[in-house]
Amino acid sequence: MQHPEAYRRLLDYSRETALYESMMSLLGWDQRTCIPKGGHSHRARQIAALTTLLHQRATDPRFGELLAGAEASGTPGGTLSDEAVNLREWRRNYDRAVKIPEALAVELAKAASKGELAWQSMRRENDWGGFLPFLKNIIRLKRQEASALSNGGEIYDALIEQFEPGENAGGIQVLFDKLAGSTFELLKQIEASPRRPDLTVLHGDSPISAQKSFVGEVIARLGYDLDAGRIDRSAHPFTSKIGPGDVRITTRFDPNSFVTALFSSIHETGHALYEQGLQVLHWGTPLGSPVSMAIHESQSLMWENMVGKSPGFWKHFYPAASKRFEWLRKINIDEFLFALNEVRPSFIRTEADEVTYNLHIIMRFELERMLIGGELEPEDLPEAWSAEMQKYFGLVPPDYSSGVMQDIHWSGGAFGYFPSYALGNMYAAQFYAKAERELGDLQEMFEAGEFGHFLGWFGENIYSQGNRHQPHGLVKAVTDEDLNPDTLTHYLKRKYSKLYEL
Amino acid sequence: MQHPEAYRRLLDYSRETALYESMMSLLGWDQRTCIPKGGHSHRARQIAALTTLLHQRATDPRFGELLAGAEASGTPGGTLSDEAVNLREWRRNYDRAVKIPEALAVELAKAASKGELAWQSMRRENDWGGFLPFLKNIIRLKRQEASALSNGGEIYDALIEQFEPGENAGGIQVLFDKLAGSTFELLKQIEASPRRPDLTVLHGDSPISAQKSFVGEVIARLGYDLDAGRIDRSAHPFTSKIGPGDVRITTRFDPNSFVTALFSSIHETGHALYEQGLQVLHWGTPLGSPVSMAIHESQSLMWENMVGKSPGFWKHFYPAASKRFEWLRKINIDEFLFALNEVRPSFIRTEADEVTYNLHIIMRFELERMLIGGELEPEDLPEAWSAEMQKYFGLVPPDYSSGVMQDIHWSGGAFGYFPSYALGNMYAAQFYAKAERELGDLQEMFEAGEFGHFLGWFGENIYSQGNRHQPHGLVKAVTDEDLNPDTLTHYLKRKYSKLYEL
Repeated sequence: MQHPEAYRRLLDYSRETALYESMMSLLGWDQRTCIPKGGHSHRARQIAALTTLLHQRATDPRFGELLAGAEASGTPGGTLSDEAVNLREWRRNYDRAVKIPEALAVELAKAASKGELAWQSMRRENDWGGFLPFLKNIIRLKRQEASALSNGGEIYDALIEQFEPGENAGGIQVLFDKLAGSTFELLKQIEASPRRPDLTVLHGDSPISAQKSFVGEVIARLGYDLDAGRIDRSAHPFTSKIGPGDVRITTRFDPNSFVTALFSSIHETGHALYEQGLQVLHWGTPLGSPVSMAIHESQSLMWENMVGKSPGFWKHFYPAASKRFEWLRKINIDEFLFALNEVRPSFIRTEADEVTYNLHIIMRFELERMLIGGELEPEDLPEAWSAEMQKYFGLVPPDYSSGVMQDIHWSGGAFGYFPSYALGNMYAAQFYAKAERELGDLQEMFEAGEFGHFLGWFGENIYSQGNRHQPHGLVKAVTDEDLNPDTLTHYLKRKYSKLYEL
Repeated sequence: MQHPEAYRRLLDYSRETALYESMMSLLGWDQRTCIPKGGHSHRARQIAALTTLLHQRATDPRFGELLAGAEASGTPGGTLSDEAVNLREWRRNYDRAVKIPEALAVELAKAASKGELAWQSMRRENDWGGFLPFLKNIIRLKRQEASALSNGGEIYDALIEQFEPGENAGGIQVLFDKLAGSTFELLKQIEASPRRPDLTVLHGDSPISAQKSFVGEVIARLGYDLDAGRIDRSAHPFTSKIGPGDVRITTRFDPNSFVTALFSSIHETGHALYEQGLQVLHWGTPLGSPVSMAIHESQSLMWENMVGKSPGFWKHFYPAASKRFEWLRKINIDEFLFALNEVRPSFIRTEADEVTYNLHIIMRFELERMLIGGELEPEDLPEAWSAEMQKYFGLVPPDYSSGVMQDIHWSGGAFGYFPSYALGNMYAAQFYAKAERELGDLQEMFEAGEFGHFLGWFGENIYSQGNRHQPHGLVKAVTDEDLNPDTLTHYLKRKYSKLYEL
């Protein structure tokens, strides 16, 4: 392939920037897994320095000139050619980056780092008053950032666009309204059902070493390459791509139930499979990067729920689990599956079931939309939170820790991220349905311990495509449908009608 | 304090550079403790990128101009004032850095990274033929570097100067000849003694968890702050300063003897105490940095041998050790101490006793001096190694792994480093003797579990001084003596005369 000189230099530049970004990944991974107490303030300084460097690189006028030069020489292969895709995304990122003053970028990174740290200790202590100044500061800065980035209309859109290219609050609201409606309907039916799972079947002596070995066996079978990753413990599980060949996940353990570690690990494995499935050849360029956070979350949520909590999966893994956790031997697999999939309105998003989970997202979307738009002030957030909880769940949280302070996202400035989860569920349902149409009965495959074809389908259609399409274009290209909540609704109805005998 | 503008900007610049250097530390720490197999090639690229950045910063003409400006405005406080010291070291480092072309700096970093990796696997396989091309490459590059840096005379001097400001091969040779002479004399006496320790007393069931708890207790008592550090496992123990408040050590465990983990941990703790004792206020400037590798190794070797293998230390810690390792209860403490301090010519440097250790260093110094000077070619190294072993120990190694391939240093390009160990032993003996003159009977203190005064003396006289003095100046300022091997010889003679009843 003969690249024009400007394009070739852009490739080099992009890859070098990505090297520095990958150092940031390591700083972040270490901060959440290994760092000693005394190392935090220095880490914040390291992150600030690297943020400055990355912002300078992202906004460097020489990069802008190269970009303009490459654009001017045209892209012979059409809008989906490698060159066209990289140029499109470089342009998108450059135009966004130059709108943010360096001082703001650095201040934001510092506030995010401090905010997350404050959140970690103050959430434990239910200390809303202590946390509020950090949150106010970060919201103040995010409003500035959103205003700087805005192309007119609602400024919150500019934050969504960072995670979901092509998406905006108005469009999301339409999808969420529809999803909320069908969810309420399904919940009403479930509540009316006399069937209730016995949750005690999920608990029993689960030595950490047995959990580690079981989790390791499961995720390796799903396709996670342990030679190109590792598993550590952290209070809040996450996935971190340090580089090609180095995609790490973390998990947490409950000695009374292996279920916690297993599903947090499968969730992170979903993220990791996406990262491990990106093309190494394109590493450091948009073509070698994930499309969006919704597509990312579609993978974590799909592997966790649609695969990991399905009958086929458990028919395969139940013997391996029972070998390690003896108490399982006395438990019927159907009872176990029912308990795993219990639907019940609850306070904590990360512990929510597949059905109510989306409502947690929708209320957060509504709240952050108001927060960034200035219709809601941080000090009024607890009250607004309670009102939303009442509206969606008929519940009011007993304290801040299980209410407004439960998520790390806002403390680190990740406004605009929450919608990705529910959008991710929609994408997941559409992809899963399409994969099944092409591959045949997936549950049969899972029951046989065969996950390779399924993973391969995602590798080919989604992971290896990098940023070739934007999210809406990707779902259209892969499934021939636009993004919609109907496939998800259909999947949920079918699954839970069976479990609750609706 | 009123700094002229140029000096203030130099401080900022130096600290920012140090932030990037501290990212390099994290990349290196992770590479040797956590990285998955698949992550190595990306890590090499990260290191190369950061090396380029650091080289650019170290040679930036704007830095040179600021430096010249600050020098021109003079340093009112005399040659040992904060400003004078920082300017002196910045000048030294800048003048060295600008002599090395960027391409060479990057090529060296890559060759070092590849060389270390090759060494790790090939040493295990005793594969000298496989390793030789890597070594040849790194020696070729180090000769180039040494030539570029050289101020005339022996080019090897320029590599020594990197680790030991003010030192050169000729001066070291004089000290080493003297040290070798007294060592031979002592060894002859020891060999003539009928006393031999019973080494079986060092071995017994040592569960890893008990080792971890014992090691943790010991190093905390010595003064290592575990809230500002952590201990991990690695094949080759090392200390890594990620930043102030974050100084990490590693160790390795032998299930049949806690002694391996204990002494490798105390050795690294010696390094860590120095790093933790530097002034945070001066972090990122020469005043907040260690003087030299010999002073660094003086601390690791002193804490390991002069403290950790002394009677006072064991009178204090023997009960704690016996509580965890039951087999110790049947063993007389004097027998244990004698076995710990056995003197015997052997193949492996890191396992050598205090007396023969210096001979290991002296022979490496002689070999690398010839290698860099071009009097010895890498392909002839095994033969030369055997000849030196024969000369100093009367032994010939049975294979490459326990001979020429045993050390990591050369594989990573650390030529000029080895002398630091034996110089370190000399410095250590002089500092220890002076501390004892000022503080009183150190063995009595150790026996009482009191290490704080001793650590405090080093904190005040050495650690907190950073680069105020160069190594020769430091020993003069602290002990009122020039660097010499006599105090070390005296210490060794006294200690081993007692043990071997000479």
